[in-house]
Amino acid sequence: MSTPSLLILAGDGIGPEVMAEVTKIIGWYGDKRDMPFDISEDLVGGCAYDKHGTPLHDDTMAKAQEVDAVLLGAVGGPKYDDLDFSVKPERGLLRLRKEMDLFANLRPAQCFDALADFSSLKRDIVAGLDIMIVRELTSGIYFGEPRGIFTEGNERVGINTQRYTESEIDRVARAAFELARRRGNKVCSMEKANVMESGILWREVVTKVHAESYPDVQLSHMYADAGAMQLCRNPKQFDVIVTDNLFGDLLSDAAAMLTGSLGMLPSASLGAPMANGRPKALYEPVHGSAPDIAGQGKANPIACILSFAMALRYSFDQGAEADRLERAVEKVLADGARTPDLMGPEGGTPLTTAQMGDAIIEAL
Amino acid sequence: MSTPSLLILAGDGIGPEVMAEVTKIIGWYGDKRDMPFDISEDLVGGCAYDKHGTPLHDDTMAKAQEVDAVLLGAVGGPKYDDLDFSVKPERGLLRLRKEMDLFANLRPAQCFDALADFSSLKRDIVAGLDIMIVRELTSGIYFGEPRGIFTEGNERVGINTQRYTESEIDRVARAAFELARRRGNKVCSMEKANVMESGILWREVVTKVHAESYPDVQLSHMYADAGAMQLCRNPKQFDVIVTDNLFGDLLSDAAAMLTGSLGMLPSASLGAPMANGRPKALYEPVHGSAPDIAGQGKANPIACILSFAMALRYSFDQGAEADRLERAVEKVLADGARTPDLMGPEGGTPLTTAQMGDAIIEAL
Ligand SMILES: CC(C)[C@H](C(=O)O)[C@@H](O)C(=O)O
Ligand SMILES: CC(C)[C@H](C(=O)O)[C@@H](O)C(=O)O
Repeated sequence: MSTPSLLILAGDGIGPEVMAEVTKIIGWYGDKRDMPFDISEDLVGGCAYDKHGTPLHDDTMAKAQEVDAVLLGAVGGPKYDDLDFSVKPERGLLRLRKEMDLFANLRPAQCFDALADFSSLKRDIVAGLDIMIVRELTSGIYFGEPRGIFTEGNERVGINTQRYTESEIDRVARAAFELARRRGNKVCSMEKANVMESGILWREVVTKVHAESYPDVQLSHMYADAGAMQLCRNPKQFDVIVTDNLFGDLLSDAAAMLTGSLGMLPSASLGAPMANGRPKALYEPVHGSAPDIAGQGKANPIACILSFAMALRYSFDQGAEADRLERAVEKVLADGARTPDLMGPEGGTPLTTAQMGDAIIEAL
Repeated sequence: MSTPSLLILAGDGIGPEVMAEVTKIIGWYGDKRDMPFDISEDLVGGCAYDKHGTPLHDDTMAKAQEVDAVLLGAVGGPKYDDLDFSVKPERGLLRLRKEMDLFANLRPAQCFDALADFSSLKRDIVAGLDIMIVRELTSGIYFGEPRGIFTEGNERVGINTQRYTESEIDRVARAAFELARRRGNKVCSMEKANVMESGILWREVVTKVHAESYPDVQLSHMYADAGAMQLCRNPKQFDVIVTDNLFGDLLSDAAAMLTGSLGMLPSASLGAPMANGRPKALYEPVHGSAPDIAGQGKANPIACILSFAMALRYSFDQGAEADRLERAVEKVLADGARTPDLMGPEGGTPLTTAQMGDAIIEAL
């Protein structure tokens, strides 16, 4: 197989800093494990707007379609708050998701033992937590038409459309069931079928996919509001959660926060297999661009590094190498290595972004 | 002024049991405080469907429009899960909200000192918590058209429409600012203006109402996903939160759960003033119909009783009497009175639903 290709879109805020550490780690894999990657870099978000007047240039979009995987840092910042909706930094990210058709967004919510005390939840409620939220990422209210601000009579009205076809629900449900089989074998599907017809169709299709193709997996359904409650009350009851784009946005952020490990959480966004059998894929940390700490060496690179671990697992079939990287992260944390966001009352060794990257390479 | 009128719709599951305790308390106000209420009772939800084939009979709807306030217990249960969407128990509640035009749903998320250890969050994060979520209740994706399941090509598509007019946003924003003035004077507005045009209009109108009429109130904006995170991380940063119908559904349930006091939380749904100056109003506990414990004397009547306290405050201008009732509830809790849901490791006096009602009357 030819050298796998990666497109790095570091983006805005702390994006470039955390991505620099990932680049080091990719280099380590090339040097020490004989796993070279063919890397190109480009712009997305506010920095792309600054240069090209658009948060994602067509050439960048075309490159993203060709590579084996995209690694993204973060987009956005207060500097861009007043931009028109159509050129906001987020539109660059949303265009990538949509045009690469990355329908399955995998967001693990894991609580690292060494960090369990960081959670606002009690230790016994989160310690050992390991759930996977599968969020539909290319449809629903994020993309449905009609949308916009229109004038009706003498006032304006803001409209967005939630829209799910059977096949859109089918494919993300399959992704969730497949994952569950490799984990705890349980899927909980969340919607508001009690008030939304799109939720009724969602529940129906998930139920059908389950009965036809995954009867061995345990399936349950929950209204999304009850799901938000249960995530706060007893998150360990879940294994895989599958839900739509908007519910997934809120629920996965809430779940991420519960772990106390926000600066630690990666994500993978996967699409259909390409000609070479690999899925279209984009990997990014769950945290945002954190403009308040950008450029100060304070950012925690672990979420971005673990996103690369997900790339090893889901794009390059290197599960053992992904495990190795994840174990290296666990080890440095257990040894007390701490970026400022991880510095709690019990102390630890204060590290900069770059020092944390180095420590992880050391542990590898 | 003539005797104020109340329509009691106890509904399904534990609804009738908890409402029975409210009825006792209403009786106490009539006997001991010379505050008689003119009470009528009727059906809503599954029990209405059983009798009339509809979750809300037109006659009940008409009565609800005429009374000074509606008290509702809870609706729904597994028995009704397979009913057609149009006659599900929830439709009765949604019809009341819509036709009474109850646009402002007030959901206090309060942590009772005696119960702080019940939260899944650490004590210091929730003790003393007192926030008010103002959820828009008559518009948005709950009611927008087009909606339904349609056939397109050779598959079905589920569609719902998020739709907000300027005046709908304006009036609920005003309700939030008014409340904030009587509390901590802070409003945080939540939407997804980064991905939804309806969120852009929401933010714009809230900003305008603030600048024009409530510049003395501190206003901030947050994306709803970040809001879900911040509620889990540091809920005490908030005073009043104003948000749309769907976000409000998830966020208020998450906030309620955080307090550890789910069986304790009331809500008020308010509309425009009627001819007598009182707002159209419906009061209901935040908890559901809890079919698993219905009829066993295990239900906690406090959320429903505190909903009546909100009625005293918001419909009948009896703030002092509302305080009295709330203090009575705090006292019985401090004295160790506990329904089964409140029974923790530190023990307490186990009470049935009726005994809890009696204890509160005693404390009054
Ligand atoms: C940045 C924003 C457009 C995005 C979203 O809403 O999907 C983010 O919140 C996320 O969850 O990845
Ligand atoms: C019962 C249901 C229709 C309702 C809603 O979704 O609004 C409930 O969850 C609530 O929050 O009052």
